[in-house]
Amino acid sequence: MRDAMYIPTLDDMLVARARIAPHIHRTPVLTSRFLNELTGAELFFKCENLQKAGAFKARGASNAVFGLTDDQAARGVATHSSGNHGTCLSYAAGRRGIPCTVVMPRTAPQAKKDAVKGYGGRVVECEPSTSSREAVFAEVVAETGAEFVHPYNDWRVIAGQATCSAELIEQVEGLNAVVAPIGGGGMISGTCLTLSNLASGVKIYAAEPEQADDAYRSFKAGHIIADDAPETVADGLKVPLKELTWHFVKSHVTDILTASDPEIIEAMKLIWKRMKIVMEPSSAVPLATILKNPDTFAGKRVGIIITGGNVDLDRLPWN
Amino acid sequence: MRDAMYIPTLDDMLVARARIAPHIHRTPVLTSRFLNELTGAELFFKCENLQKAGAFKARGASNAVFGLTDDQAARGVATHSSGNHGTCLSYAAGRRGIPCTVVMPRTAPQAKKDAVKGYGGRVVECEPSTSSREAVFAEVVAETGAEFVHPYNDWRVIAGQATCSAELIEQVEGLNAVVAPIGGGGMISGTCLTLSNLASGVKIYAAEPEQADDAYRSFKAGHIIADDAPETVADGLKVPLKELTWHFVKSHVTDILTASDPEIIEAMKLIWKRMKIVMEPSSAVPLATILKNPDTFAGKRVGIIITGGNVDLDRLPWN
Repeated sequence: MRDAMYIPTLDDMLVARARIAPHIHRTPVLTSRFLNELTGAELFFKCENLQKAGAFKARGASNAVFGLTDDQAARGVATHSSGNHGTCLSYAAGRRGIPCTVVMPRTAPQAKKDAVKGYGGRVVECEPSTSSREAVFAEVVAETGAEFVHPYNDWRVIAGQATCSAELIEQVEGLNAVVAPIGGGGMISGTCLTLSNLASGVKIYAAEPEQADDAYRSFKAGHIIADDAPETVADGLKVPLKELTWHFVKSHVTDILTASDPEIIEAMKLIWKRMKIVMEPSSAVPLATILKNPDTFAGKRVGIIITGGNVDLDRLPWN
Repeated sequence: MRDAMYIPTLDDMLVARARIAPHIHRTPVLTSRFLNELTGAELFFKCENLQKAGAFKARGASNAVFGLTDDQAARGVATHSSGNHGTCLSYAAGRRGIPCTVVMPRTAPQAKKDAVKGYGGRVVECEPSTSSREAVFAEVVAETGAEFVHPYNDWRVIAGQATCSAELIEQVEGLNAVVAPIGGGGMISGTCLTLSNLASGVKIYAAEPEQADDAYRSFKAGHIIADDAPETVADGLKVPLKELTWHFVKSHVTDILTASDPEIIEAMKLIWKRMKIVMEPSSAVPLATILKNPDTFAGKRVGIIITGGNVDLDRLPWN
């Protein structure tokens, strides 16, 4: 049993890759001549919006779920999340046929609750406060003995997310840089894990909303800064860094770039219009930062992680 | 020089395929476990929304443009269209570096005019009436000597559209049926051309909006019935059959199925939500008809042509 602060290695990524292969898609990489001309770069979009359950988090969740012993698995898994991690954990648990409980604020959108239930998971509601969430979650774990799978501060999850860039560097030769959104840092940490080992010349940029720029400020300050309740259209990116993800960010990230909410919405609409794919505001932050920093990326081959596609079609941010 | 009523053959499709290969995408085929479970069928979505210029019409337009002699090409091409054909003809002409004029009602959406201009074409406006359109178009041709490329009643265009199902039957083995939207009948005619020659066991269903069901009524009556100005959310499908497309429809189509506008919008939203792709209302008519006729498709392997992805993101039909 590894302790909670164990730093995952390349071997952990390789084990994850073999373990989750039957449960996830090897997602396609799309390109757009129009966006290449607009940015002066060659962009390669790794489409995790087309991933199982609609987000890259199916990778980490599947790695955690399928890595459990049978005894652990019998007691199920639990998490707190009102975003893609809850849906993806429910997906993975459903594939293994084990119970999954997701604690969510009662104020979370019905669509998010339905998504968890759609894959067979159970939603337990709490009040929209940290204290209520922690109390309710503790009850769930006491009752069920379920294994807690944190959305990102978990070595099994990071090793799972790391499989995404392992595919990307096989799909695209000679990348100069990868840009991925940063919230809690799970995807960026996985990207760091894989690229620092397998393609150490590739620069790693984290893209963050200006209105939730705690990772940017942490990076500049040299220690974790957590905001209380940032508000941004990129709602998947509001959470703060934690110890494990901070380790990867401070060791391997080239820079953190930010974009404003209007810039994020414009980049999102551009991708929908030109690439004909449905993706979340969070996934548009990389393109927004590339459009804002043309000199950094001009003439470069740049991978972009489109992290997810679970968006409320009745409430698009430009309407 | 073939006359206007020449019926294209398998050889014409094969020539088209070689000719247009450098200018179009071999579009991917996507699947959805959720939609398979919902319909009881195995659905294979041929994603022409990811085609160059955002629609299958890039195929027919490219075949027409690249089949011109140098003398013809020097005088350019012209058409009347306020939809994807105008954009795609402009795209193809731009690739060959020849002039393209598209006659459009001045009331057409600015986005459609911009799309033509974005690929280098010229927009000439007419009044929103058939007589004005015909008069303005005749002037354009008299001035320029441009070659008229009709949106669908043109053997070169039909042979180009026919390349789509040639790819589909290579990408998916053992199809039992293909369902494609029907407006003027260009895509369906191309589908008939290819399948009747290369996969004659595959049933061909045309899917049409109830509110523009002239092809359905033509099919039942045994002769072309054209409506005056039908109104439907599936705005690519309002135009009537013409002689060439009627030939293919009456000879090879298994049946024509219809769906209401609310059913089309629901199917469209389902595809956006579950498959994470941006596509037009017209492209949702096949799924709407499959959901409405489950017994026809249950247990079958069914190809669906997603014809295009050019939709106004500011005016989605469910908002």
